[in-house]
Amino acid sequence: MIKRNKCIANIKAGYLFPEIAKRRREFAAAHPEAKIISLGVGNTTEPILPHIDKGLTEGAKRLGTVEGYLGYTDEGFLELRERISKVFYQGKFAPDEVFISDGAKCDIGRLQLLFGAGTKVAVQDPSYPVYVDGSVLIGAANGWTGTGYEGIAYLPCTAENNYFPDLSKLPSDSIFYFCSPNNPTGAVANRVQLTELVKAAKEKGTVIIFDAAYAEYVRDPNLPKSIFEIEGARECAIEVNSFSKPAGFTGVRLGWTIVPKELKYAGGESVNADWARICGTIFNGASNIAQWGALAALDDEGVKEMKELCDFYLGSAKLIREAVQSLGIACVGGDNSPYIWARFPGRDSWEVFAEILEKCQVVTTPGSGFGPAGQSFIRFSAFGHRADIEEACRRLARLKG
Amino acid sequence: MIKRNKCIANIKAGYLFPEIAKRRREFAAAHPEAKIISLGVGNTTEPILPHIDKGLTEGAKRLGTVEGYLGYTDEGFLELRERISKVFYQGKFAPDEVFISDGAKCDIGRLQLLFGAGTKVAVQDPSYPVYVDGSVLIGAANGWTGTGYEGIAYLPCTAENNYFPDLSKLPSDSIFYFCSPNNPTGAVANRVQLTELVKAAKEKGTVIIFDAAYAEYVRDPNLPKSIFEIEGARECAIEVNSFSKPAGFTGVRLGWTIVPKELKYAGGESVNADWARICGTIFNGASNIAQWGALAALDDEGVKEMKELCDFYLGSAKLIREAVQSLGIACVGGDNSPYIWARFPGRDSWEVFAEILEKCQVVTTPGSGFGPAGQSFIRFSAFGHRADIEEACRRLARLKG
Repeated sequence: MIKRNKCIANIKAGYLFPEIAKRRREFAAAHPEAKIISLGVGNTTEPILPHIDKGLTEGAKRLGTVEGYLGYTDEGFLELRERISKVFYQGKFAPDEVFISDGAKCDIGRLQLLFGAGTKVAVQDPSYPVYVDGSVLIGAANGWTGTGYEGIAYLPCTAENNYFPDLSKLPSDSIFYFCSPNNPTGAVANRVQLTELVKAAKEKGTVIIFDAAYAEYVRDPNLPKSIFEIEGARECAIEVNSFSKPAGFTGVRLGWTIVPKELKYAGGESVNADWARICGTIFNGASNIAQWGALAALDDEGVKEMKELCDFYLGSAKLIREAVQSLGIACVGGDNSPYIWARFPGRDSWEVFAEILEKCQVVTTPGSGFGPAGQSFIRFSAFGHRADIEEACRRLARLKG
Repeated sequence: MIKRNKCIANIKAGYLFPEIAKRRREFAAAHPEAKIISLGVGNTTEPILPHIDKGLTEGAKRLGTVEGYLGYTDEGFLELRERISKVFYQGKFAPDEVFISDGAKCDIGRLQLLFGAGTKVAVQDPSYPVYVDGSVLIGAANGWTGTGYEGIAYLPCTAENNYFPDLSKLPSDSIFYFCSPNNPTGAVANRVQLTELVKAAKEKGTVIIFDAAYAEYVRDPNLPKSIFEIEGARECAIEVNSFSKPAGFTGVRLGWTIVPKELKYAGGESVNADWARICGTIFNGASNIAQWGALAALDDEGVKEMKELCDFYLGSAKLIREAVQSLGIACVGGDNSPYIWARFPGRDSWEVFAEILEKCQVVTTPGSGFGPAGQSFIRFSAFGHRADIEEACRRLARLKG
C-alpha cells in the first residue's frame, strides 16, 4: 500500500484558524446564550463597493453572451497585468512580470516549488502560518521541536527590536518570508529598514518573498507599500499581493505575484521563466469574473472605493487600539494595518484567548499560533461590522483588574 | 545565491499548449491572410446558459449587499458539497468527502503532496500532460530519457489494446492517473474494465487518481461516469472533476475532488484528513461567485442546461469524426467525448500537425505531446463555434491524396 508523504506527518496539530473555530464552537455549545463577536480571523465583512461589484456582476453577465464569453485565461488578462503595474508600481513592471493568481496564500503555497525541498527557509517570528506550514509540506523543514520546526530560521520580531528582525541572523542562500504591514503584529517596516533588508539579502544570496497583502492599509506617506520601492529589490525579491483585503475579495479570490526578470538563481537561470512554467503546469488561471472585478477596482472610481473600504476597517482598528490601550495593555499596529498586537507579559497566549472568550465573548487569535515569539501576545483583527467592533470594545473593559 | 529546484530543471521544453500557441502565432505571422480555426486546445467557446449564468450574476450582485456578503469559504459551501454528492453520486458521499476546488488541474497539482517525492507514478500513455509534469515538479519523477521521464510507468493505450492498459504492468504501491472519458483519446473505459482496474489497484496497493472531467459527455447508459460506480473503489480511489467542460466554467474556475474516508495509507492514516489539511494550508477556497453558479448548475434547470451544452459539443464531435473517417483515417472518440483521436500510421505527430495547419489552416494537437504512445496520432477537439467546426471539416478534405 502507498505511504503517506512524511512531510505531512511533520506538520503538527491543526492549522491555527480551524483550531480557533473549533474552540469557538465548543464555547458556543456550552454557552448557547452568548453573543460571540469575532475579532479573530482576518476575514472581510463589508460588502464590495458598488463600482467594483458592478465590474464583477457585468463580468458574470458577459459570460452568458456569444460576444463576451471567455474560457481559460491562464496568464491573466493583459490589461489587468498592465493596470496592476501602473496603479501599484508606477508602471515599472512589464506584463510578463505580473502573474495573476487566485490569491496570495495559494501562490505562497506554489512559490516553494521554485526552490524545492533543499532550500533553507527563514521567517519573521511571529509570522503568518502558511510560510512555515507550506515549507514543511514541501520538505524544506522537518519535525516539530517543541518551539518550532527543525530547519526553519525564526527571526524574532519583538517589542525589544521594534518588530524588525536582527538581519545578522538571516541565513545565506535562503528564502526569507517578510510581511509588511505585518500579519500578525501590524508593524510596518520603514524605508531604512527595508533598505537594510535588501542589502542583507543581496549580500547573503537570499531571496525575499515579500507579502504585501495589507499594503493598501498604509496611511503614513513615509512608509513603503512595496519592496520594489527599494533600489536593488528587483535582483532579490518576489512580491505577493491580493485584492482580498483592499477590495473585500476574500471570497472572490484574486491576487498577483511580481517576479522581476532580474531575479536569477545561483546558476543564472531566470526565476521568472520557471514561475511561468509552474503556473502553466499546475494552475489554470484565476476566475475571469474576478479579473473583471479587479479591472473595475483599478480605475479611478475603484481605487477610491478601495481607499474607502480600507479607511473603514482602519477606523475600527483605531477603536480597538484605543480600547486595548485604555486598559493599560501595550500594543502595536492598528494605525497602518488592520491588526492590533497586544502584549500580556508572562502569560500564555491560549490562556489569554480563553479568558477573553470567557469574560467578553470575544474571539481573538493567540499570538503563539504565529510562532514562538508570539507567546504572550494576542492579535485583534479589525475585520468586523462597526456595531460589533464597538460592542467588543465595550466588553473588553471586563478584562480590567 | 539560492539554487533552482532541480525538479524544474527536469521538465523538458515548453508545456504542450503554450508550444502549440507559439506555432500558431508563427504561422499567423507568416500568413497574415489565413483564417485559422482551432481544434487544438480543450477550451470551451459557447456562452454559459441563462439559468446557470443567472446563478453567477446574482452571486456577484449578492457580494455588494450587507446581508449577502461572504468572505472566505475555505472548504466550500456545505449546500454545494451536498448537491454534488446527490447529483453525481446518488448522495453516497458525506459533505466532508467532497472538496470544492478552483479546478481539476489545480487539484491534480496539489494531490501529489499527499504522497510526496518518493511515490511511484503510473500514467496511461497517452495522457493529459499535467499528471506527468506535476509528478516531475514534486520530484516523483526524474530526467527526460528521450521518450519519457525516468520513474514514470507509461502504460500504453493504443488501438492494439483498445485504449485500455495492460494492468499486469501497473506498478505496486504507486499512484495511477486514469482519465475516462479519456483526454486525449476520447475512449471511455467500460464497467468490466474499471472493475478490473479497481481489482488490480487493490491487489497492488495502488491509489487511482480518477480524472472524470469529461464524465458528462458520456451518452451510452452502459458506460460508467465515475470510478465510484465500481464496488471497492472507495478503498483505492480519489476522483477529480470539474464544472469546466459540462457548464462552460473553464474561465470561471470550479471543480471538486472526492476523497473517500475509507482510503488509507499503508500506515492506516486517513488520506481524507491529510487532504483537508493540505487544502487548509495552501489553498483558500474557490470563488464564492463560482460556487453560486455551480449551485444553479445543479438544480433541475441547471442539469438540463449542462446536458444541452454537452450535446452541442457532442454534435460538433460527430461532424469532426465523420469528416476524419470520410478521409479513410482511423479514429476513436467523439461519441461519448469531445475529443477525436486520429491515427496517421508511420508519421510524426508534429509533422502531421504542421501539414494540417499548412493545408487547412486548422490547429490540432499533436498526439506525441501526450506521451510516447501518442506518436503518429492527432487530437481533434470539438470545442468551437459550430460554423468554425463546419468550415474546418470542409477544409480537412484538402488532406486527401
